Amino acid sequence: MSVYPAALAPSRAVVPAAPSASSAELPVLGRDVRVPVLSGELPYAALDYAASAPALQRVWDDVAAYLPYYGSVHRGAGYLSQLSTELFEASRATVAAFLGCRDGDQVVFTRSTTDSLNLLAAVLPAGTRVFVFETEHHAALLPWERRPDVTVTYLDAPRSPREAVGVLEAALATRGDDGPALVCVTGASNVTGEVWPVRELAAAAHRHGARIALDAAQLAPHRPVSVTDLGVDWVAFSGHKLYAPFGAGVLAGRADWLTEAEPYLAGGGASRTVARRAGGGIDVAWHTSAARHEAGSPNVVGAHAIASACKALTEAGFGALVAREERLLGRLREGLAAIPAVTVLSLFGEDSDRVGVLSFTVAGQDSSAFARELSARYGIGVRDGLFCAHPLVRTLLGTDRDEPAGCHEPADGVPAGSPLHAIRVSFGAGTPEEHIERFLTAVAELTAG
Amino acid sequence: MSVYPAALAPSRAVVPAAPSASSAELPVLGRDVRVPVLSGELPYAALDYAASAPALQRVWDDVAAYLPYYGSVHRGAGYLSQLSTELFEASRATVAAFLGCRDGDQVVFTRSTTDSLNLLAAVLPAGTRVFVFETEHHAALLPWERRPDVTVTYLDAPRSPREAVGVLEAALATRGDDGPALVCVTGASNVTGEVWPVRELAAAAHRHGARIALDAAQLAPHRPVSVTDLGVDWVAFSGHKLYAPFGAGVLAGRADWLTEAEPYLAGGGASRTVARRAGGGIDVAWHTSAARHEAGSPNVVGAHAIASACKALTEAGFGALVAREERLLGRLREGLAAIPAVTVLSLFGEDSDRVGVLSFTVAGQDSSAFARELSARYGIGVRDGLFCAHPLVRTLLGTDRDEPAGCHEPADGVPAGSPLHAIRVSFGAGTPEEHIERFLTAVAELTAG
Repeated sequence: MSVYPAALAPSRAVVPAAPSASSAELPVLGRDVRVPVLSGELPYAALDYAASAPALQRVWDDVAAYLPYYGSVHRGAGYLSQLSTELFEASRATVAAFLGCRDGDQVVFTRSTTDSLNLLAAVLPAGTRVFVFETEHHAALLPWERRPDVTVTYLDAPRSPREAVGVLEAALATRGDDGPALVCVTGASNVTGEVWPVRELAAAAHRHGARIALDAAQLAPHRPVSVTDLGVDWVAFSGHKLYAPFGAGVLAGRADWLTEAEPYLAGGGASRTVARRAGGGIDVAWHTSAARHEAGSPNVVGAHAIASACKALTEAGFGALVAREERLLGRLREGLAAIPAVTVLSLFGEDSDRVGVLSFTVAGQDSSAFARELSARYGIGVRDGLFCAHPLVRTLLGTDRDEPAGCHEPADGVPAGSPLHAIRVSFGAGTPEEHIERFLTAVAELTAG
Repeated sequence: MSVYPAALAPSRAVVPAAPSASSAELPVLGRDVRVPVLSGELPYAALDYAASAPALQRVWDDVAAYLPYYGSVHRGAGYLSQLSTELFEASRATVAAFLGCRDGDQVVFTRSTTDSLNLLAAVLPAGTRVFVFETEHHAALLPWERRPDVTVTYLDAPRSPREAVGVLEAALATRGDDGPALVCVTGASNVTGEVWPVRELAAAAHRHGARIALDAAQLAPHRPVSVTDLGVDWVAFSGHKLYAPFGAGVLAGRADWLTEAEPYLAGGGASRTVARRAGGGIDVAWHTSAARHEAGSPNVVGAHAIASACKALTEAGFGALVAREERLLGRLREGLAAIPAVTVLSLFGEDSDRVGVLSFTVAGQDSSAFARELSARYGIGVRDGLFCAHPLVRTLLGTDRDEPAGCHEPADGVPAGSPLHAIRVSFGAGTPEEHIERFLTAVAELTAG
């Protein structure tokens, strides 16, 4: 008899959805949570998926099925250690399949997109030239300049996908040499939800001998992301935006720079052999697999949760997920367009392709106070501020660049009532239509009179 | 009516145990798991706590109670964002109380002890001299030398706690200046379980103007750890060894070096304001709170799980926990002493203070094969190898320093049958006596004849 739990069967296959996929609303935790509002209580409407999405019920069930079998990963001789190691490596294979990885690509489990891009910055060859649009999230904007032996070129916000490609081509053409170069670009803006022309940018980068990393934190939960199809060299995403909020993220892609660089962290797991030198000091031989950058005990639960989410999204089918999201997004945009006080922020214009992320301002209203009213009166959770993309939001708002504004740190006072901020509404596969309708009703009522 | 879930009540108090504490065996997940053995199946005996401990039932219950209320931490305006932010900061306060932190100390949530000590290495002032015994786990041995502007002195393995203090004093006395210096030392060895004289080492460090960091990965699950009582400047530990395997760890202690250094990761959360400079480049103002080193969305689940474990251990009472562990450890040592083929490894000698971690070799037997037999015949999970502490284990075994040996990476072949390896048995608050008895029976049977 087998005591290997069926829920943990190490299937590395990702099952594609049947053509007749369902409505593709996926059950999430918290869908029955009620929260206090001024008039009593209401079911919570989570419309801040772009910051952190609720866990898929499927992800939670998979984590719950595994936890009693949790054991030390790597080198443990016991049954649960063997099972946990197998599960961890199977999770890696599932993520590789989800991302359409090429032979030889590595999948490194990190803690988040931020961590993934900091890892990528750490492994850049000396002298790398980095090209990045000012429109990026801080996680994709800030890691590069910390390397003193790397030069960073910041590109102005383009106002169309075509302009983005042109701006990048022009910048890359100024490179005076053929040394290493990296472009880092988002797949979908965390502020406007607008989809960037990743395939075209990748082609442009490669034409000029540069490599390209994709920040898929916002894209991966909404659209299929294949490094092969998109032609990108690396992709990074976070579990907590992909319905798997257990502290893990991913950097996947070309192995060479990862293998040639010093390990990200020094410690066990990354080190193959360690010995004292006769003359003092320590000799270390590091692993060349993904373990090189995963020192310390791996977050098996986080990796398993991400793999579970990858399977759930693939099995639901991105065709059905995208169709449903576009219907909700169409309703959201149509509803907001009918409210005169609302201005929706856009870099690429009215007709641009978007995922379920949208930011706006309300004429004559403070964004923070407006967001608080949505919570206090309607049980709706959105986000207000600059969304860790200060240069982009300032460009979109046309505001002064030097005005201080908080990111997401509660200790520092963010100036209330500032017109420098916006409100973001974002949703995903667990969002029922009622949340969108309630949100539109709320905005209409809060702006009426 | 309140819809704030009772299980999440943000109590920051850590309730001390009543004097009449129970037997202090704490329920853990997996206690009913059965695994296949050659003769059928058996309940799994998890005796690899030193690598990864099973989750406490209490920790799991707390995580399960929270997950439906999961929301984006910091800056989200919705109810669940507010609740999650409160829970995250309450978890920080719980950990601070658990560790006896001083006013002004910071508690940074990392991903593991390895991550915590790499963070500490990253924030050392330029020119810091680091002193570390060769006996440390790689996580505490290797991060320092990666800083080119830091010098590291490796100290030979002492053979008694008193010698450890003497060796450290002698080394610190050779410092030619009064520049910054750091000692990093384990609280309890991950190989022998022997407890190090942390208070005395801290006093020695401070006498010589050095600071001291405590690697409490192995100590914190077994003994109370108070930075105030021990007089250490920083302490690091991992959730996955503290019955909270959700991808988080802790670095806690003095704020000054943490605040003065560049952020560990660049990204959102760590950055307060970000703006393009007119002349090119980006101006960033970083936070000075713990958020400075926590860029990216925090692992709220991991932090909550650690806080839950801190509460559970405190409420059970370390007095009762230690008493029970010493009884089990006494039985284990007595049992192994009666088996002639077994040699228990020790740095500090027979009478040294130990936690529930013990390594040994078996005359004429290959450690890896022996560990596999414990699993295959008795359903017992232990670990074999060098335990990510290669210099220490080689010193204990008296073996050649240059022999290659794996740490915990499955991809690289570890030479089987090598006498260079040992077997480690380790346990904790969830271990029933039957596991220890079964282990002793197994070792006796496997070494008989």
